[in-house]
Amino acid sequence: MRVTYWLTTMFALALLSGCQMMPAGEDSVEPAPALRGTGDLGLIIERATGSVLVVETTDREVLGRVTGLGDLSHASVVYSRDGRYGYVFGRDGGLTKVDLLTRSVVNRVLQSGNSIGGAISQDGRHVAVSNYEPGGVKVFDSRTLEEVADIPATYVADDGSSRRSKTVGLVDAPGNFFVFSLFDAGQIWTLDMGAAAGMNVTRYDAGEAPYDALITPDGRYYIAGLFGEDGLSLLDLWNPEEGVQEILPGYGKGEQQMPVYKMPHLEGWAIADGRAFVPAVGHHQVLVADMNNWSLEDRIPVQGQPVFVMASPDNRQIWVSFAHPRNDVVQVIDSRTREIIRTLEPGEAVLHMEFTPRGEEVWISARDSNRVTVYNTRTLEPVTRLEAEKPSGIFFTNRAHALGL
Amino acid sequence: MRVTYWLTTMFALALLSGCQMMPAGEDSVEPAPALRGTGDLGLIIERATGSVLVVETTDREVLGRVTGLGDLSHASVVYSRDGRYGYVFGRDGGLTKVDLLTRSVVNRVLQSGNSIGGAISQDGRHVAVSNYEPGGVKVFDSRTLEEVADIPATYVADDGSSRRSKTVGLVDAPGNFFVFSLFDAGQIWTLDMGAAAGMNVTRYDAGEAPYDALITPDGRYYIAGLFGEDGLSLLDLWNPEEGVQEILPGYGKGEQQMPVYKMPHLEGWAIADGRAFVPAVGHHQVLVADMNNWSLEDRIPVQGQPVFVMASPDNRQIWVSFAHPRNDVVQVIDSRTREIIRTLEPGEAVLHMEFTPRGEEVWISARDSNRVTVYNTRTLEPVTRLEAEKPSGIFFTNRAHALGL
Repeated sequence: MRVTYWLTTMFALALLSGCQMMPAGEDSVEPAPALRGTGDLGLIIERATGSVLVVETTDREVLGRVTGLGDLSHASVVYSRDGRYGYVFGRDGGLTKVDLLTRSVVNRVLQSGNSIGGAISQDGRHVAVSNYEPGGVKVFDSRTLEEVADIPATYVADDGSSRRSKTVGLVDAPGNFFVFSLFDAGQIWTLDMGAAAGMNVTRYDAGEAPYDALITPDGRYYIAGLFGEDGLSLLDLWNPEEGVQEILPGYGKGEQQMPVYKMPHLEGWAIADGRAFVPAVGHHQVLVADMNNWSLEDRIPVQGQPVFVMASPDNRQIWVSFAHPRNDVVQVIDSRTREIIRTLEPGEAVLHMEFTPRGEEVWISARDSNRVTVYNTRTLEPVTRLEAEKPSGIFFTNRAHALGL
Repeated sequence: MRVTYWLTTMFALALLSGCQMMPAGEDSVEPAPALRGTGDLGLIIERATGSVLVVETTDREVLGRVTGLGDLSHASVVYSRDGRYGYVFGRDGGLTKVDLLTRSVVNRVLQSGNSIGGAISQDGRHVAVSNYEPGGVKVFDSRTLEEVADIPATYVADDGSSRRSKTVGLVDAPGNFFVFSLFDAGQIWTLDMGAAAGMNVTRYDAGEAPYDALITPDGRYYIAGLFGEDGLSLLDLWNPEEGVQEILPGYGKGEQQMPVYKMPHLEGWAIADGRAFVPAVGHHQVLVADMNNWSLEDRIPVQGQPVFVMASPDNRQIWVSFAHPRNDVVQVIDSRTREIIRTLEPGEAVLHMEFTPRGEEVWISARDSNRVTVYNTRTLEPVTRLEAEKPSGIFFTNRAHALGL
């Protein structure tokens, strides 16, 4: 037994040190990908070129580029539970499984005409995609990408006809549930993938025109933003029999509203110290809501319309990105004092931010500057910059271990 | 002093000879370890045999055994930020770096005569070990295990002499801090590894004889259990200038106290819904404390003296293990109703529990039954059983991404 380990180790070390196993006389074989951990890896979406960069956060490096992923505007990524594979949700209905170790496309399906995001089940067995056209949710086997379920989001319209709704805000929830919202129907649906009797859908009436949603980090509260009215729809998954409640009823009201250049991303909500820090819609403000009763507690003035409002993993800082035309700036708020402690300029058209898993650094993409800047969260100074082609979303593999991401 | 284990030399030799003994076409070497993700891996301590099992949680399998780790009673593990390497802290002062992919010992140092646990810094660069003999903390480079700092836990005893204290409850904290307690001195120290001017130690007076400690998941509150008095010592790392406060002053008091068979593990405290679920010392109870003011809010009767009280990742369930002689049972509490919803019998001498990263299953070790049982957290039914030699601690690689673990 011990001899086996020795030999195995020797071989691995030899591989790592450059002693490749090449067949004699052949030099066209690619070197085998090096054995390595996947916990410090990630993908950066390059939206204009349909490609993703494989990056690692320990030495802050780009390891390679994978191409051929189709239309990646608004693309997002979830990860297999081993952290090796990223599932990239494109805008064109494409679902692409990328191997971060071999840096290649393992599988790709065009599963609808138009889609927006997806999720992976708690147990990692199923990947679900939220579709606009035709409206509904499809569920795939995460290993093979075989379709295992097609859930048309059917509802009865005002004229009595049966229609299919666009779906948005698809997330995973504890117990192998998926939860999503029906934009056209004003509903929230839960899809139970783990029920003994097979899949089970439950429907809840929500507010008008939900456009995006989030789930709190413990998987308890599902909150949908509404295009059609002020306020938000909340479903408490610990008490689903209570149905959907309206929260923050003044949300978006109260002052002269400015044109909304970009709807805020709800996934980016920051939860810190029993408070939710929420991007105001159409205002230069971050709202602070008390999560005990979901009342509005405070408004923090910021320099533009917030898009992402994200808490650092230790909840000490709230990082805010902004909509056009003030989208070349990121502001950092101290979550205790609620004061802006730094204004940073990572480049033109800041699109996304992602903290390293334990929060010592944060990566920020600036699309029109073709770069990603890494900041130290303690000093708030840049650590390094990486080149990327029109980078947008940044997704690290520790998402594999978090609920609702 | 640091003693480099003979393995280091052996590995250098292996590396050299490995290059020479791999001519093309020869098949006398073991195949390279398969390329795989590390996000679903873990280590199980086999305390009697000085070995660890490498396991994976997707197919619930034992992948292999690594031997030669010395005295592993009370051993614990932290992980490199890429999830590939586990740092195993033995009782004999041994610090062993295990490669989960090659399933081998990469490096091992005997860094003191007697030690208890350790931590890895937020940025993953440093591993710290808590030592009893001689008392203090040593810090190592996580890549090489070279010693980079030796912090003797020196204090002035009642008789005026300078002594070294045993250290306990060593954790990492945001900002590349380590925090630990001095058992003999009744102090809590913070060690700032990220200060611009170099390392910086700050000392705080705490209660009498801290025996273990925990840090809350956001890295804010450091809480030490006290052997010398009722109550606990709390240091708010967001407001360290306030010094150490005494909390839960009645902790352990109030009723006829039973003999304490095993001090509860503080790392196992469950934080759910603004409440801390705390093992009572010497009582058949789980205590519920309101984290807003740290007052005692409730007492949940259980079947024995609790050792680990752990919340599932979705905070819905509190899983409780027990001290001898009632240690063949685990009880599951609903965190909302605070009622016991199931009593399980995983085997004799249950020592540890570990949830899969997103909480769909939990692994439980039963030392005297030589097995680990995996339960589904939704059905509360066993999924599978794995054989292990006197298993104790179970540690999955997602700890690489969590603060304070």
